[in-house]
Order: sequence, then structure tokens, then C-alpha cells
Amino acid sequence: MNAAAVEGGISLEELQLATRNHGMPLEALQYPITPGGLHYLLIHYDIPAVDPEEWRLEIAGNVEREVSLTLDDLRARPAAEIPVTMECAGNGRARLAPRPISQPWLSEAVGTGWWRGAPLRALLEEAGHRDGSLEVLFTGLDRGVEGGVEQDYERSVPLVEALRDEVVLAYELNGAPLPPQHGFPLRLVVPGWYGMTNVKWLSRITVLDRPFDGYQQERGYRLRQDPEDEGTPVTRMMPRALMRPPGVPEFLTRERFAPLKPCEVTGRAWSGWAPIVSVEVTTDGGTSWAPAELERPLGEWAWRGWSFRWEPSEPGRYVLGCRARDAAGNEQPLDEPWNVGGYANNAVERVVVTVGDPSV
Amino acid sequence: MNAAAVEGGISLEELQLATRNHGMPLEALQYPITPGGLHYLLIHYDIPAVDPEEWRLEIAGNVEREVSLTLDDLRARPAAEIPVTMECAGNGRARLAPRPISQPWLSEAVGTGWWRGAPLRALLEEAGHRDGSLEVLFTGLDRGVEGGVEQDYERSVPLVEALRDEVVLAYELNGAPLPPQHGFPLRLVVPGWYGMTNVKWLSRITVLDRPFDGYQQERGYRLRQDPEDEGTPVTRMMPRALMRPPGVPEFLTRERFAPLKPCEVTGRAWSGWAPIVSVEVTTDGGTSWAPAELERPLGEWAWRGWSFRWEPSEPGRYVLGCRARDAAGNEQPLDEPWNVGGYANNAVERVVVTVGDPSV
Repeated sequence: MNAAAVEGGISLEELQLATRNHGMPLEALQYPITPGGLHYLLIHYDIPAVDPEEWRLEIAGNVEREVSLTLDDLRARPAAEIPVTMECAGNGRARLAPRPISQPWLSEAVGTGWWRGAPLRALLEEAGHRDGSLEVLFTGLDRGVEGGVEQDYERSVPLVEALRDEVVLAYELNGAPLPPQHGFPLRLVVPGWYGMTNVKWLSRITVLDRPFDGYQQERGYRLRQDPEDEGTPVTRMMPRALMRPPGVPEFLTRERFAPLKPCEVTGRAWSGWAPIVSVEVTTDGGTSWAPAELERPLGEWAWRGWSFRWEPSEPGRYVLGCRARDAAGNEQPLDEPWNVGGYANNAVERVVVTVGDPSV
Repeated sequence: MNAAAVEGGISLEELQLATRNHGMPLEALQYPITPGGLHYLLIHYDIPAVDPEEWRLEIAGNVEREVSLTLDDLRARPAAEIPVTMECAGNGRARLAPRPISQPWLSEAVGTGWWRGAPLRALLEEAGHRDGSLEVLFTGLDRGVEGGVEQDYERSVPLVEALRDEVVLAYELNGAPLPPQHGFPLRLVVPGWYGMTNVKWLSRITVLDRPFDGYQQERGYRLRQDPEDEGTPVTRMMPRALMRPPGVPEFLTRERFAPLKPCEVTGRAWSGWAPIVSVEVTTDGGTSWAPAELERPLGEWAWRGWSFRWEPSEPGRYVLGCRARDAAGNEQPLDEPWNVGGYANNAVERVVVTVGDPSV
């Protein structure tokens, strides 16, 4: 299970990212929909200042007709609203050894929102993607330098993914206009995929007849065992269960203290590949596992609540953990799946709870 | 000026705090009022789950009449709304050497909100604080272990501070009910004081006839040069100016790149002691300083916008900085004021900008 140690120390560069971006405090697993401001956030460059009056969404490339839309145009179209769990592809990175240097997530880079917007498929059909179209490229207004390349943030998805019914161009989160940090005025939401796909501050959609080879596709977000590997792209979220930590925390260590009595342990689990079919819980550091009870699903693309009645029999220090399995047969590993970029580390987390003695 | 290095590496314990809590990304200095989710956040223990129907505010201690109020009772009272800049007392801590171990802030633990609520003074007068009252203690519903002591988070202020006209018990932030992470359903707001005073998830107010000696008052939040010192309490915010960094960032280093042309550098400055009377800017690493132009104040207790026209004459690497002075004569130092707890480090920040060459 994910060990406690962070190998070496976190550098200034990593800390600068960690003080800007933030995870979801794990006690926020109490909410089926993550309240505003608690959803995880990863911003590659700066939050751009966008004037919604000036802003346009342009659709171009390998299409029959180029399209230019205002925010009002998009709001006037039929809308869809969908609860979606979104996780950063780098979640768990800081648990890896050696540690890949980037945003140093532990385990909390996740959140679930109601995203409302215009379905993408109808827009692409109106523009008329031509024969030979392979991918759809999404370009944001956030600009910066990465790997020596000055760039707008942009990522593509295969055409077949872009045409899925549940893909939306979202202009609302939890019933309010998108906050600046979540992509105001518009962001892409591709349910099931890691966060990097859900391009924020969206300004341009380009239908391509060849694979996109920009920085964020060819160099970033690939699973590689060696920096020289071509690697394979990061796509959908691997299954993960997280626990709302029981008891109360110690300020600095975040270790937990709970009284000696039965305790309802709860949490949520998700996978981008298929529905969650089981969550198991250990209270002895992974020696034995018992099934948790699953709640009714919130939606096809949102996390699923679970609960487990824990009855510690004596005071002591317990190591808890939970692991999820999806209907496609993917299961969380106990050991970290290492790769150069530190992506998709869904190893089971340790939650240390001291029962019966509240003094450290 | 605050050096770039973080001495040693950040530990797992510090990182755990940094991935939960978060600063305000500095480009959010573009907003006079910080949008929801971008205001800094420091949560000592966990965000508690509060049922607003069950919740009550109790006022007791050295009073004529004990008072118990529902949220509706508070909302039915005359309300005040005030823009307040709030900064964590630990802002700048991770720049100190040796580095005090706690939440490792760099410089972004700040934000400004419109806080609306019931003025405290009228409530204390209705309860009738008796002769001999010295302090008012505020107790939150957040509970945890710190320094070996299991505790509710609680802090006191001198009675004279509690009776200031502008102190409110806030139930709204920026026109909406308090979000869970900012203290729903009620928090104390004492304009001018560092964040730790503004107790969240407020449940109890106790008028005291002697000084409060709890953990957060006697051990936490004191300025000490040696762990054995009695020290002096941390109270109001020292002056600080921050700059919205010009140009675009490099992803990992956060260093900036800007074209060779005139640039309007902007930012905001605040002090808890007195109004801001000047902001000066350096573009040569502190060798020379020139005055910035101050905007009209947003309010007596909120930061003040400033701007400075920078005309770099040739390509190169520039070190920018800004420093604030208040009407009480407090000015930001160039070197870090060290203390055991790492509080109130308001040394001038360095902002490195490479002009004219966007490639790293």
C-alpha cells in the first residue's frame, strides 16, 4: 500500500505548484457533489482573464463549415447536465520513488461536479467533420512555457471519443457559471478521462485528419518506463477508492485518533473504464479484506459511495485501506505502478488510526 | 528580498498540509474581490459536517444573560457587509531559514471577500458583558490534536477588539452562504487581524474575566526568538504588497517570460495597522525603487490596488519586487524577520522575468 514516506524532500518548484493548485480535503468525501472551491484544481500556466463579450468559440479544421459561437449562442442550444468525477492524471505522484518532478499530489486530486453545457456531438455534426477525420483538438486560452516550448495549452481526443453522447462543452458547474479557475467561460468535459483532457478556457476546436503532435500529447501525459520510450497515452481514470478518514486528525501528521467504539467508515470509488462493482476494506494493513456496502450510483460517470462498519476490539494503532474494482476487471494495486511522468498511480492508500488514546 | 531557495526539502507532513490547504494563485490579484474558491484557505483539523437546523450559537461566560441563537435569529438581525482582506499569519513561512515546520506557505496565503453578517458588538451588549471582562473567547466546531492536546479550535481577542464596530459574525461570503471550508454556518471576522483570529464554524462565544490560556493562544501564534521565550501574541497583519506576475509562466519554475515592450505591472497592498500610503517597485533586484500609482481604496479593511508602468529597455533577466508602507510607518523589510513559529514574514518577494526571449 502507498507508503508514508516522501523520498528526498519536496523542492521549491514543486512547492510553488502545491501552494497554487490544491486537492480536495478528504473529509469532503462526505459530499456526493463537491462544493465549490473544494474540487481539485490543476492549472498549468495562469488563469487567463477572459472578457465574455469578446470571447468566441471557433470550430475549424477538417470541416464542411467553420463555426463561430458566442457564449449566448451556446447557452441558447439544447443543454445537458451530468455529474462527472474528475481526477488529475498525476494523482499519487508524490508517493512514487524515485519521485517524478511535477505537481506533487498525494491522493486528493479529485472532485465531482454537475457540469452543464452544450453537447459536443451536435456541434461537430453541424460543422460537418469530413471523411478522413481522426482526432479533435481543443485549444485553451492559457499560455505558458513548458519543456522549452511556449504554447497554448491544447490536447486532442480521437474523433470517436469526441462524438460520445455524454461529452459536453460546459459553461456551468453546480448550477453557477464556471468559476475562473475551472475554465470560465467554457471547458470541455469528457467523462471518464483524466483531468488533462478536459481543456479549460476553451477557445478553438480543430478537426484533424492526422494525429496531434503538440507538447501535451507527444511529450506530456504518456506512460513511459524510460525517458526514451515512445510510451502510450494517458487516457481514462484507473479505478480508485478513497476513505473519509475516521476520527479527528493531528494537525501536522494528519494521523487520526478515534474512540474505542464501532465506527461507520465511508468513502467513494470511481473508474473511467467501467462501473465500480466492489470496494473492499482492510483494517489490518492489508492482511485481510472485507467487502464494503455500495450505495446506489449517482450517475454513470460519477463516483459511487460506499460504507463499512468497523468495530475495533481493542485500543491500538490500526492501518486502514480500501480498494476498488470495476466491471472491466481493473483493480487497484497494492504497490505503486511507477512511470517516468508519475501518472495514474492508483495504489491503495494507508490511513493510520490510533484507537482509544487521544493523546499523542 | 525573499530568496528563491527552500532550505532542505519539504517533508511529507508539510506536503500533506500543502495539498489540502491552498493559497490564492497570484494572477488572481487581478480581481478586487477574490472569486469563490480562490481565497486562501487554512484548516487546522477537518472541515466539520454541520447541520444548520441543529446548530446554535451560544453566548455565555461573564455576562448578565446567556444567549442562544439559531441561524435564522442571526439573519433576522441588522446586518453589516464589509470587504476584508485576510492573510494567514504563516504566510511567507517556507521562505525562512531555518524553516519552521508547519503549513509551508510561500507568499499567496491571502484573499479579499465581502463578508456579511451580524455585528458582534450589539450581541455582546445584549448579553451584557459584566464589569471585569477582559477578553472574548471564540470556539469552533473543528476538533483535532495539536502539540499533544486534543482540542476544539478556539482563540480569544481582547474585549476592546471584540467591541469594534466593524467586527461581524459572518454568514455570507461574496453574496452567498459561507462555503463549508470558510466556516459554514458562521465565522468571526475581525478586520485587520491575521486569519487565525477569524474563527470558523463558530459555536460558542465566552466572555472571560481573565486571559485565555488555551493552546492556540499560549503556544501557537506567538512571536518567539527561542522556543523557551514567552513571546508576544501575533495580532494584526503587517504591511505587504504583492504583484500580479507579468508575462507568462514556465510550468515548473513559475519564472516569467514577457516580450520586450512597455508593461503595466499591477498588484495590491494591505496592512492591518493603518491605511496603505505608498507602494514602491523595483525592476533591478532592489537597487532602485520608484513609486507605484495607488488606486482608490476599496474599503478601510481591504487591500489597495496599485499599478506601475515598466518599460524594459533591452532583453534580459529582470528581478522585480514591490514594497508597501502604511500610515503608521510600518514598511516591508527586504530581509525575512525570523521567529520560531514562522509568523508574519512580510519580506519583499522576488519576481523573476525574462524579457525578449520566450525560449528557456
